[in-house]
Amino acid sequence: MRNIALRLMYSGTNYHGWQTQKNAVTVQETLENALTGICEESIRVTGCGRTDAGVHALKYCVNFKTASRIPADRLPLAVNSILPRDISVTAAVDAPEEFNAILSCKKKEYTYKIYNSKIRNPFYEHYSYFYPQALDEILMGEAAARFVGTHDFAAVRSVGTQTRTTVRTIFDFDVERDGDFVILRVSADGFLYNMARAMAGTLIYVSMGKIRPEEIRPLLKTGDRRLTGPTVPPQGLYLSRIWYDGIVGEIMT
Amino acid sequence: MRNIALRLMYSGTNYHGWQTQKNAVTVQETLENALTGICEESIRVTGCGRTDAGVHALKYCVNFKTASRIPADRLPLAVNSILPRDISVTAAVDAPEEFNAILSCKKKEYTYKIYNSKIRNPFYEHYSYFYPQALDEILMGEAAARFVGTHDFAAVRSVGTQTRTTVRTIFDFDVERDGDFVILRVSADGFLYNMARAMAGTLIYVSMGKIRPEEIRPLLKTGDRRLTGPTVPPQGLYLSRIWYDGIVGEIMT
Repeated sequence: MRNIALRLMYSGTNYHGWQTQKNAVTVQETLENALTGICEESIRVTGCGRTDAGVHALKYCVNFKTASRIPADRLPLAVNSILPRDISVTAAVDAPEEFNAILSCKKKEYTYKIYNSKIRNPFYEHYSYFYPQALDEILMGEAAARFVGTHDFAAVRSVGTQTRTTVRTIFDFDVERDGDFVILRVSADGFLYNMARAMAGTLIYVSMGKIRPEEIRPLLKTGDRRLTGPTVPPQGLYLSRIWYDGIVGEIMT
Repeated sequence: MRNIALRLMYSGTNYHGWQTQKNAVTVQETLENALTGICEESIRVTGCGRTDAGVHALKYCVNFKTASRIPADRLPLAVNSILPRDISVTAAVDAPEEFNAILSCKKKEYTYKIYNSKIRNPFYEHYSYFYPQALDEILMGEAAARFVGTHDFAAVRSVGTQTRTTVRTIFDFDVERDGDFVILRVSADGFLYNMARAMAGTLIYVSMGKIRPEEIRPLLKTGDRRLTGPTVPPQGLYLSRIWYDGIVGEIMT
């Protein structure tokens, strides 16, 4: 059996998240249906992680086993010809037998886009979080830096998903302004459920003066979700990069 | 009675165009319902022109008469609080009594965005025309320049809307590449039905080698729609600028 890895891009607006569920259309199910059509056998994919309803992906990775002989470089166009236009396969490669999109993942980056303007922009509605009060991106950046490192992130996650440990390592967390946008970019070895959005909400609290940058580490130590900022809306969140070793890592850059 | 002018921005994806019609949701009707709520009297607006289903507006102008005393500078936030999020009022001003959004218009600019990449991008799907074959923007620009001037544009319009004359004046028509996008920008004293999209389709024919730049003027002279390029899809089209004299001109810049 071949083990094929795909790079995907999708707009999450019309989906109930990544993972297949009853009575709701998801990205996983939509992709599996398209691949089943192309490979002429029932296909089940392993995704690199769950994304919530409304969350987007600029670079998402899946792998799947198949006996199909279709050349990997023909897969993107073939699958895209069946996929709805809000999901696009942007690369494909034959991966090593042991490659697994979730277990082989070394590092992920999420980007959170805040549209920080007084007036709503219809074109950004599903693609950013509209926040009309002026944000202080410098102060937010100082707080973001306090999240970097290996910590217990229980204070910035939603309960509901089982996990062995709530300790994760954040490698980088930058905040920058680009005109009316404030862009948060955070990379880690893994993210807890809602962690990226809870940290984004906490940085907004910092800008509002409700939390000081030097309080971030002590807040993490409490492990108390009630003391940090709110989980901001999904439409601003993008899975923007994902790192693997070897050939799959090459197509994901 | 006051005569109020509004500047609007809207994403046309979910609307059957600007103009009110039976059994279909339009931007005009949606805006009138919101204004009726805010002004506490039945409001009818005059728009600066029709846009088709799926066509967007970065700057659109309407005017309406009202006895409401709400200050013009409060209108944007008030109306936006009721409008769906794909329509936004971005400015408002008390206009002279005789101002009329369509009759007072001096000049309009349309922008047409072509996503010229081999692979579809889910985020641009409703906001550009996906055209995977390589486009020659230099050759297209040479052809675009031949449209400039006062001509009979019957060869690049769809029949269906009554008009006194098919003569119009194009002031500027530029083509530029911005990464994977080819952007067409055309300004005129007025546009015939589907004229911007038919000219865009004709420029694509030029890139394909089906029409040479020097054939544009002779083709216009024939007045024969069958000899020019196709009407390209609506989702790439934006009403991007509109010019008026006086105070309304100031808020529209």
